[in-house]
Amino acid sequence: MSTFGQFLRVTTYGESHCPSVGCIVDNFPPGVPVSEEMLQPQITRRRPGQSSITTPRNEADLVSIQSGVEGGLTLGTPIAMTVKNQDQRPGDYKGSTMKQYPRPSHADFTYLEKYGVRASSGGGRSSARETIGRVAAGALCEHYLKLAHGIEIVAWVSSVGNIHHIPPTPEYPATSHNPKFLDLISTVTRETVDKTVVRCPDPEVAAKMEQCIADFRDRQDSIGGTVTCVIRNVPTGLGEPVFDKLEASLAHAMLSIPATKGFEVGSGFEGTEIPGSSHNDMFIRNPVTEVDSRTGFAKPKLTTATNNSGGIQGGITNGAPIFFRVAFKPPATIGLPQQTVTFEGETDGVLENKGRHDPCVVPRAVPIVEAMASICILDALLMQGGRKMAARAL
Amino acid sequence: MSTFGQFLRVTTYGESHCPSVGCIVDNFPPGVPVSEEMLQPQITRRRPGQSSITTPRNEADLVSIQSGVEGGLTLGTPIAMTVKNQDQRPGDYKGSTMKQYPRPSHADFTYLEKYGVRASSGGGRSSARETIGRVAAGALCEHYLKLAHGIEIVAWVSSVGNIHHIPPTPEYPATSHNPKFLDLISTVTRETVDKTVVRCPDPEVAAKMEQCIADFRDRQDSIGGTVTCVIRNVPTGLGEPVFDKLEASLAHAMLSIPATKGFEVGSGFEGTEIPGSSHNDMFIRNPVTEVDSRTGFAKPKLTTATNNSGGIQGGITNGAPIFFRVAFKPPATIGLPQQTVTFEGETDGVLENKGRHDPCVVPRAVPIVEAMASICILDALLMQGGRKMAARAL
Amino acid sequence: MSTFGQFLRVTTYGESHCPSVGCIVDNFPPGVPVSEEMLQPQITRRRPGQSSITTPRNEADLVSIQSGVEGGLTLGTPIAMTVKNQDQRPGDYKGSTMKQYPRPSHADFTYLEKYGVRASSGGGRSSARETIGRVAAGALCEHYLKLAHGIEIVAWVSSVGNIHHIPPTPEYPATSHNPKFLDLISTVTRETVDKTVVRCPDPEVAAKMEQCIADFRDRQDSIGGTVTCVIRNVPTGLGEPVFDKLEASLAHAMLSIPATKGFEVGSGFEGTEIPGSSHNDMFIRNPVTEVDSRTGFAKPKLTTATNNSGGIQGGITNGAPIFFRVAFKPPATIGLPQQTVTFEGETDGVLENKGRHDPCVVPRAVPIVEAMASICILDALLMQGGRKMAARAL
Amino acid sequence: MSTFGQFLRVTTYGESHCPSVGCIVDNFPPGVPVSEEMLQPQITRRRPGQSSITTPRNEADLVSIQSGVEGGLTLGTPIAMTVKNQDQRPGDYKGSTMKQYPRPSHADFTYLEKYGVRASSGGGRSSARETIGRVAAGALCEHYLKLAHGIEIVAWVSSVGNIHHIPPTPEYPATSHNPKFLDLISTVTRETVDKTVVRCPDPEVAAKMEQCIADFRDRQDSIGGTVTCVIRNVPTGLGEPVFDKLEASLAHAMLSIPATKGFEVGSGFEGTEIPGSSHNDMFIRNPVTEVDSRTGFAKPKLTTATNNSGGIQGGITNGAPIFFRVAFKPPATIGLPQQTVTFEGETDGVLENKGRHDPCVVPRAVPIVEAMASICILDALLMQGGRKMAARAL
Repeated sequence: MSTFGQFLRVTTYGESHCPSVGCIVDNFPPGVPVSEEMLQPQITRRRPGQSSITTPRNEADLVSIQSGVEGGLTLGTPIAMTVKNQDQRPGDYKGSTMKQYPRPSHADFTYLEKYGVRASSGGGRSSARETIGRVAAGALCEHYLKLAHGIEIVAWVSSVGNIHHIPPTPEYPATSHNPKFLDLISTVTRETVDKTVVRCPDPEVAAKMEQCIADFRDRQDSIGGTVTCVIRNVPTGLGEPVFDKLEASLAHAMLSIPATKGFEVGSGFEGTEIPGSSHNDMFIRNPVTEVDSRTGFAKPKLTTATNNSGGIQGGITNGAPIFFRVAFKPPATIGLPQQTVTFEGETDGVLENKGRHDPCVVPRAVPIVEAMASICILDALLMQGGRKMAARAL
Repeated sequence: MSTFGQFLRVTTYGESHCPSVGCIVDNFPPGVPVSEEMLQPQITRRRPGQSSITTPRNEADLVSIQSGVEGGLTLGTPIAMTVKNQDQRPGDYKGSTMKQYPRPSHADFTYLEKYGVRASSGGGRSSARETIGRVAAGALCEHYLKLAHGIEIVAWVSSVGNIHHIPPTPEYPATSHNPKFLDLISTVTRETVDKTVVRCPDPEVAAKMEQCIADFRDRQDSIGGTVTCVIRNVPTGLGEPVFDKLEASLAHAMLSIPATKGFEVGSGFEGTEIPGSSHNDMFIRNPVTEVDSRTGFAKPKLTTATNNSGGIQGGITNGAPIFFRVAFKPPATIGLPQQTVTFEGETDGVLENKGRHDPCVVPRAVPIVEAMASICILDALLMQGGRKMAARAL
Repeated sequence: MSTFGQFLRVTTYGESHCPSVGCIVDNFPPGVPVSEEMLQPQITRRRPGQSSITTPRNEADLVSIQSGVEGGLTLGTPIAMTVKNQDQRPGDYKGSTMKQYPRPSHADFTYLEKYGVRASSGGGRSSARETIGRVAAGALCEHYLKLAHGIEIVAWVSSVGNIHHIPPTPEYPATSHNPKFLDLISTVTRETVDKTVVRCPDPEVAAKMEQCIADFRDRQDSIGGTVTCVIRNVPTGLGEPVFDKLEASLAHAMLSIPATKGFEVGSGFEGTEIPGSSHNDMFIRNPVTEVDSRTGFAKPKLTTATNNSGGIQGGITNGAPIFFRVAFKPPATIGLPQQTVTFEGETDGVLENKGRHDPCVVPRAVPIVEAMASICILDALLMQGGRKMAARAL
Repeated sequence: MSTFGQFLRVTTYGESHCPSVGCIVDNFPPGVPVSEEMLQPQITRRRPGQSSITTPRNEADLVSIQSGVEGGLTLGTPIAMTVKNQDQRPGDYKGSTMKQYPRPSHADFTYLEKYGVRASSGGGRSSARETIGRVAAGALCEHYLKLAHGIEIVAWVSSVGNIHHIPPTPEYPATSHNPKFLDLISTVTRETVDKTVVRCPDPEVAAKMEQCIADFRDRQDSIGGTVTCVIRNVPTGLGEPVFDKLEASLAHAMLSIPATKGFEVGSGFEGTEIPGSSHNDMFIRNPVTEVDSRTGFAKPKLTTATNNSGGIQGGITNGAPIFFRVAFKPPATIGLPQQTVTFEGETDGVLENKGRHDPCVVPRAVPIVEAMASICILDALLMQGGRKMAARAL
């Protein structure tokens, strides 16, 4: 399906080379001041052509609000947003042998198996351009979350290939125990993240990552990486057990981003290797407690001394920062020649891609991860809001 | 929400200590021969009390079909299934200090924050007993998948603590490249898996895992692990881009299981560290091609020489085996005393759990992972079936 | 599908002759005092065998809560409810020729066309017994609506055959203008409705209706009728444009009840024949205005002088009473012999039903209409509650 | 919500005076030849300014496909369609007193109560312009239904005020028994319907209806009417009991159209007054039986001698023509002065609308009814297709 969310529903449309891409955001809260200018920065952060280590396609990607906003305020009605596809240059693709041969590890073959037809050039619906609609919707959601609840969502590149920002150590086999990591998730901002083109908040590590990506680019090869994301100031009580536990929604959201291969929350895979006695997050008094009288959402009486849970227990937020990590594979489209066969399985051949493609997607994936996180959180917040309202009326 | 699935919809109900737990499965195919006897084995595999390394609670857990089946055939109407809660022994829990103190890393606190009330004993809705409904539903789904499409779903324990069945090696940094692993996913059966109580198909590794769990049990501590699952003979074309890519649905399904912290498909996190040129799965002719004339589902003309994609490309199955791995944290409930504070944040205290709990959940998680995988696949199959039928009518 | 509702979700299960029928109610508000005793009266009102003009089957129909309630309070988790099928007597049906011949205007034929199999006796899933789950769920919902918002839902029989309680007159061609009708919807209670077995609040008209039904019963024939329902004290702002306008949800809900053929709200079909100038509901000051500080739901500043809109404008409640009317056809199962052919179209035959069936369903439909109305309203209330909460946080 | 449909999902966006209106159609079948030219006629039929009895606003309303179609074939991906709002003339509205006073029986007041904000002019989201997206989506759906299954959907004006095309008679108290009506539903075409501007297929009755509307227009008043719709050649087995019975989905769809007040299917309200013995549709052999080997959809072995069921029994199609009737109230916006009070309930006043509005909506509602019917049927067809495919694989 092309809709995400239970109450807040984001529907995207668009292929790589159709007239426009975009989305409809349904059930967004009414009365929220918004403008295209507020939304543009995240769309621009997603855009290719930002540095020598991303694809040089220069897509202007200006978002246009079609509905749902009047006089600068949201109406509560569906907000449609479109971005024109300006820099299509389908010739770049056509010159290659992609049309006869399915590109390895790309969606050419499976789209044809599924639909019986497929877009003639580019990635069609599986293209990263589809994510523009997500980023537009996410920018809208995070704007509300910040304004109404002070929620902050920041993602960054935590690894490129085998270069890790904060790898596990003998002392801290679970990174979620590492004070350096805990400090980072408390303080990291988008400004810090954007200081390096690779979007890693540690300039030294970032330099290594950039060099790594440049090396793969020069070899016409590609490399993967991971993005870590933190969500701060989340009210308690978000997440809808049992099937829509917040980590389940986040995992769903993240694995729906092209090129993703994994998701882990809190202590993640590392957490499977440490004892329960050191993994458990002990409850302590919360130094700052507060109830919002308008909504009943609260900074609760308890917090935890550690945060291996990643801010979620039993599928429900406990008020601590939520953090998770997403794995992105090396991009499938590479310049190196690759042996393949035609769609019909008839002729062996060599595929050489001539298009402009990213040697590593993680820098540009950062705003997409933030967008999907924003949509998840706002959806969960609206559902819990309905429940809280129902309980308050008793 | 307590419903999973878009077309095939599974709704579960039940807490740890209410009269019964169970589920309603809606939109299951009609005309399928089913019986309680067919479904019972998976429910029994999930059951506690199966070995010295699982909790000694002996829950009979007999499934009873309430509706949707007549004369041994499904009617196409909702299939309700219930399992009575027979061995409740709430006293075991009451003797402990759990009621005054929220258990660390358990859902006691967050359920109270979310709902304002919570079940007085046991895990309530967050209890692993809720998964009985899932396993019943999953047993139904996998029965159809096997019967109609020969689809096989097998999960096993791939690690306990730091004991890994097939760890990454210098030669095979991505396990998805390792011939031993590729052989395993082609051949592993439930019979092999069940030969050891820990449910690892390699008896030597299994023995180490059992010892590890026994050690943690004896220390009144707990340990985590991972479960790997393979799905074989899946038709091409399953998965609903962009938001319901098959890996996104699987991730959602898996992260909705209690105690999960991570999910990875195909090459997963390891795949982020290898070059695209070795990660890409080259297309080759499929030695066996076949079209099912009744449905149009096919063994396609192409397959891939490698399978780092884990059987899914662009969110859609390509016919190769699907495999993924799920991380389970160490169980939160341990016998060791833990410092905590009351729900009201008023009194420090020490929590000592007296209940019967698993020192490691992965052996019993195996059928739950299989169940959620079955539900995902059948849901995707029914949706693609509708699309194929629509295209055939043209 | 067997699930109704967007946020509050009711899933029913069960056929006429399976072990039990029931439902799961998901997302019901937490902390609400409920008991089986509270829910039983509506289920008993739906029960057959209540009078000489309903079917003499005596089904005890005792509701049992399986989950979601502890210590007399709802937990916010799914509430499963079951009613055992005690009085099955399938022999009654088997003696007839129903198995060989599809019953005219019943669902025997279409269920077989849809599913390829069908329940061997009784109506299977299309049986009125399925509505027990709805009535249990509805009783739960109306209990909350009354407790938290003082909302009252009352339905009654407004016509049997051509005997109408308040027919259109030359002076009041639209009944929604008729002062007698407007007085009725302001004052009618379930106690008044239940004073007659036919459930029409006017004893004189009720006597005629009863005689009419008795006549059709004696002739082994059947007759239809209509049920009118009013919902009072509804907050403004309920209903989710554009596709889930409240009247659209109500129409969906009502037409999902077996044997229904029509729905009209406010002035309805009669309203199509009067000029806009007399149909428009003029705004006036609301003598009683009030804002609930806990929820923001309000008795608004404006009300209308008339109520042809039936309390809904643009798909959203305006605070005036909601009223609508539902058409029920004459029951398909009659004792009179009917010419038919076998399922295979091979043999002509005569169908003579021997089972116990209602000559007119409207008296027993009253609690079913109330139930579906309750579910609709609570679903709309929870969604609007989420929106209000979101707007309050700004 | 702004999405309709379970599997085929139509999401609309747009208010009366925003940059564009439109929709996204998700899960439309792939490989279907479509073009903007194919879709335009229904959008043009919906357009105002078509005759002296509709509003003189001349909206060009050219549909533009944004995505999901390439090389003239649908890709199976979301099809976004937009229509620019060209003839906004908000001045027409601003000159009136609408901004200070809520228009009686319009959605001004309830939108403000619901959202706390509202569009400053025109009907905002409740404007009939929102239906453009529905008509575009419906045109797409009916194109597939015709092409793949020969399904025909035709609606027409069956009454204006008290002028009825085929009123009940003493001989035929239920119109569904009237041979003239049965002949009409078998033969009526859009060409016949469009021969008169009022869209009633009987020229004599049409002339009376036109005169009636002209009279109300001249008086600056308005009048209601009904639209009847027939769907022919529908396969058996469509409709998803119990909550998504086909008549329930149709009722939902129809009551979501602005200005609707009622829905009836088959014998409808009239059917409540005739005995079961004459209401029941007797089964007979179907003279033409046929199974589509590609899909399994069939012209079945049985049909019915009469069709009081309106082609649906137990919520499932039986292969006979589906027909239903929809009630439209007199338009709320009239030129006659109306007493009202301000939104704040502070000042009495007189509202005089100066905008261009329809004195009767039914002629323009015809393509909207057809559109919503098309969407319902295709959604049901795709769901049943998935089920049939699942059953075939056994």
